[in-house]
Amino acid sequence: MTKERLYLYDTTLRDGAQTSGVDFSVNEKIVVAELLERLGVDYVEGGYPGANPTDTEFFSEKRTAKAAFTAFGMTKRAGRSAANDPGLQEILAARSDACCFVAKAWDYHVRVALGCTNEENLQSIEETVAAAVAAGKEAMIDCEHFFDGYKANPGYALECARAAYLAGARWVVLCDTNGGTLPDEIHDIVTRVQEVVPGSHLGIHTHDDTGHAVANSLAAVDAGVRQIQGTLNGLGERCGNANLITLIPTLKLKSAYADRFEIGVSDGQLREISSISHAFDEILNRSPDRQAPYVGETAFATKAGIHASAILKDPQTYEHVDPECVGNRRRVLVSDQAGKSNLIGELTRVGIQVDKSDPRLDRLLALVKEREAEGYAYEAADASFELLARRELGEVPRFFEINSFRVMVERRFNAIGDLVTVSEAVVKVDVDGETRMSVAEGNGPVNALDMALRKDLGKYQSAIEGLELIDYKVRILNGGTGAVTRVLIESHDTKTHRRWFTIGVSSNIVDASFQALADSITFALMKANLT
Amino acid sequence: MTKERLYLYDTTLRDGAQTSGVDFSVNEKIVVAELLERLGVDYVEGGYPGANPTDTEFFSEKRTAKAAFTAFGMTKRAGRSAANDPGLQEILAARSDACCFVAKAWDYHVRVALGCTNEENLQSIEETVAAAVAAGKEAMIDCEHFFDGYKANPGYALECARAAYLAGARWVVLCDTNGGTLPDEIHDIVTRVQEVVPGSHLGIHTHDDTGHAVANSLAAVDAGVRQIQGTLNGLGERCGNANLITLIPTLKLKSAYADRFEIGVSDGQLREISSISHAFDEILNRSPDRQAPYVGETAFATKAGIHASAILKDPQTYEHVDPECVGNRRRVLVSDQAGKSNLIGELTRVGIQVDKSDPRLDRLLALVKEREAEGYAYEAADASFELLARRELGEVPRFFEINSFRVMVERRFNAIGDLVTVSEAVVKVDVDGETRMSVAEGNGPVNALDMALRKDLGKYQSAIEGLELIDYKVRILNGGTGAVTRVLIESHDTKTHRRWFTIGVSSNIVDASFQALADSITFALMKANLT
Repeated sequence: MTKERLYLYDTTLRDGAQTSGVDFSVNEKIVVAELLERLGVDYVEGGYPGANPTDTEFFSEKRTAKAAFTAFGMTKRAGRSAANDPGLQEILAARSDACCFVAKAWDYHVRVALGCTNEENLQSIEETVAAAVAAGKEAMIDCEHFFDGYKANPGYALECARAAYLAGARWVVLCDTNGGTLPDEIHDIVTRVQEVVPGSHLGIHTHDDTGHAVANSLAAVDAGVRQIQGTLNGLGERCGNANLITLIPTLKLKSAYADRFEIGVSDGQLREISSISHAFDEILNRSPDRQAPYVGETAFATKAGIHASAILKDPQTYEHVDPECVGNRRRVLVSDQAGKSNLIGELTRVGIQVDKSDPRLDRLLALVKEREAEGYAYEAADASFELLARRELGEVPRFFEINSFRVMVERRFNAIGDLVTVSEAVVKVDVDGETRMSVAEGNGPVNALDMALRKDLGKYQSAIEGLELIDYKVRILNGGTGAVTRVLIESHDTKTHRRWFTIGVSSNIVDASFQALADSITFALMKANLT
Repeated sequence: MTKERLYLYDTTLRDGAQTSGVDFSVNEKIVVAELLERLGVDYVEGGYPGANPTDTEFFSEKRTAKAAFTAFGMTKRAGRSAANDPGLQEILAARSDACCFVAKAWDYHVRVALGCTNEENLQSIEETVAAAVAAGKEAMIDCEHFFDGYKANPGYALECARAAYLAGARWVVLCDTNGGTLPDEIHDIVTRVQEVVPGSHLGIHTHDDTGHAVANSLAAVDAGVRQIQGTLNGLGERCGNANLITLIPTLKLKSAYADRFEIGVSDGQLREISSISHAFDEILNRSPDRQAPYVGETAFATKAGIHASAILKDPQTYEHVDPECVGNRRRVLVSDQAGKSNLIGELTRVGIQVDKSDPRLDRLLALVKEREAEGYAYEAADASFELLARRELGEVPRFFEINSFRVMVERRFNAIGDLVTVSEAVVKVDVDGETRMSVAEGNGPVNALDMALRKDLGKYQSAIEGLELIDYKVRILNGGTGAVTRVLIESHDTKTHRRWFTIGVSSNIVDASFQALADSITFALMKANLT
């Protein structure tokens, strides 16, 4: 049976970005786009060029290699031509492969929000799509509030969809903007829409306001749509968007979908989905949802006891899918054969080749498990992982040795009676047999420590000249100031353009930061092939 | 049209209690049972009497007034009579109205887990149900792994269901124990089951392993079942059980269900559902899911801006249900677009009444906007917001004045040659005209500062005795150690059981933490009505 192609469209960087408390910098958007490419989605909706400086800058370059890089925006305003609509022109000027324009499909909104006639709205849709097509873009229309609009005025909603399709849109996306539609309604309405737009050109965009975002997406697919819009980890305002991390494994592993459809995510990419999901949580600096379907820490944590032996004999009788397919682990108290092959995979990924039977693998595996139990999360810190592995394999030279450091933060009145806070760090480091002491001030204790650490590394100083700290994330594990702090640092070398992540864990935030900073410097020196 | 009765069965205290990390005491079970009665569910499955001392004690009295108090257990062992099965007898002896027995319905499990024949299993089901009926209990059977069992051997699965029904079970509950079944499959199989058991006697029990627990429950209802099993806030192992908090509003407010079915939850009880959900999180000591459908803090948080006026004119066009029906609020975020009416709404919520024309409102609004541009996020820090507002209104006494502080983190070798990191904080504070100096050590700089701040506040010391820091979150805004740090602290008073959030923002993490800690202490003193 020939499978049909199903397309995955990610809107983490646009709809997801509208979540309160979420604020991606250009840099973070680049990192997320890389994650999405790693996952294998077909479209990456990067934002709304022209709406804010971050998005405009993000679209100054094409940010994906495989996925269609997509710019979002609105249909042109009524009363202007497409050529004379600066908002539209800005979107077309962006370095994207595709453009997705949100359009009204509910007559009430046309009247109240746009203040134009139904006819004018249809015209705006047509002319916007035509302009995008003429500009060489793949064009699509997001029909906002489609299902509520259909219920209120089915004729008009269908006209909007039809207008977009006939004008040349590759996709007409039906959006359940308020999130209140149920699966059967989705199915019925999608079926009706195919009277005017073929399923091959239909997409679905759902929200989780009744806990049906995923179910609604699949109901729409069952009814004929061939594009699903969603976000990583279901990020989105209110109750979130459809969670692609939940949808993808179902599409790949459940015969009801896997037998009928092909998606752009390979089996190998599927095995990375847990890691990708967790890496995204790190970027958001959020605690992962431990109970998330497929990728959550407890998703396959079987009750220990009674049926342990039965599980091992035939896991299929207790697990709905094999956790390894999604890069997750069966958490039962037995020896971890799967652990070793995962580790080999991870080592290969950072460029280290080790033979399966190498005894050092077992030691490294035990070390990784121990560290992760303490709070290290190596899937988010490649450079620290690589250092750990290479140290275990005896390959990392001792570039420098930090004997001691002292960091002080003081808040006091200065000479003219102002209240100021000052941070100072002193570092004592051995380089090439010589002890050097450095002092630096900074905006805060970690900044001061960073400055002091990098101030004088003797013969290595030139190798870290281009080193800069891009991002710094702190997570407190287990709550309270008496708990464990995990620090994740992203570093960048302005000369080699290399980017890497390092991690530190301690009950003391300065100590944790110190580990991550020291690892970062060591990694930079290692990559510079010094001795 | 006469509505059919749909029954809600809560298993928070049994299936939910199996979640790792969850451990209800008898007292907590009593409190939860009261919550469930407040909600209006029909059955409360309280646990497994005989399996552990807590449950045995819990069942020594009937714990519900309206709901059917239900004891869970297993069908009798093969090879024994019902009368001679001590486990069964213990369940029957419990002070319950109903009994629910889990039975195998998948031949594989009968063989591997029970080690008896298919016939013996059917006999166990029949004799168990008969014994319960004879003992005057409402009897029901949970058919474990029903859907997988049906797929493997449909004939046998149906025989198990039929046996239970014919023996007199009030309910035959079909359980998707592995959580991997999809809605269409649920619908199809439930339809088939009605060849042997009428829908009026069928129940559904789902898990969220593919994100379909809620959808599967409703698909089963569509197919004919009339009992839904679930838990509060979807508590449960792996990915959780079907969330009754999500299901109930849909059943009450969506015409697809509200027109056809009656449930035991009244409109008044529905308005309490947000409160009940949050109270349950308190019992679990978990952070509530801010994005939970219907009851989550952000479930109705609209993007401020463009359509704010349109929403207020006709909320139905932007909200799928009226938030007040479920005791939640329309939250136009205080952040960024704070209008005066929003501000008044927020002030009312923290108990401050101000007249719309009060000139201080404009000043406060400007102050909030300014602070939020700096990085303060008041929607997450009610106590800091209240302090800010009350200070602007001149209502907060100067309890104490912190003159200066000094925090030091040092990593060095100790006397026996070990590398240690020590943190010390010194605080100088004026209380009641007297200057006091305190020093404290801690796990890290913020812990040390917290300890030093609270060590000696003179006449206020007893008022902060119960104060403890529950959670501490750090976010770096704009990346890099030179950027702005936002610290959010959750505090708890063990004496009043009050919980509150405070925030601090600075480029210096210690300074930011200091602000949040000082606010927390001030808030505690203010709430203690001191002068």
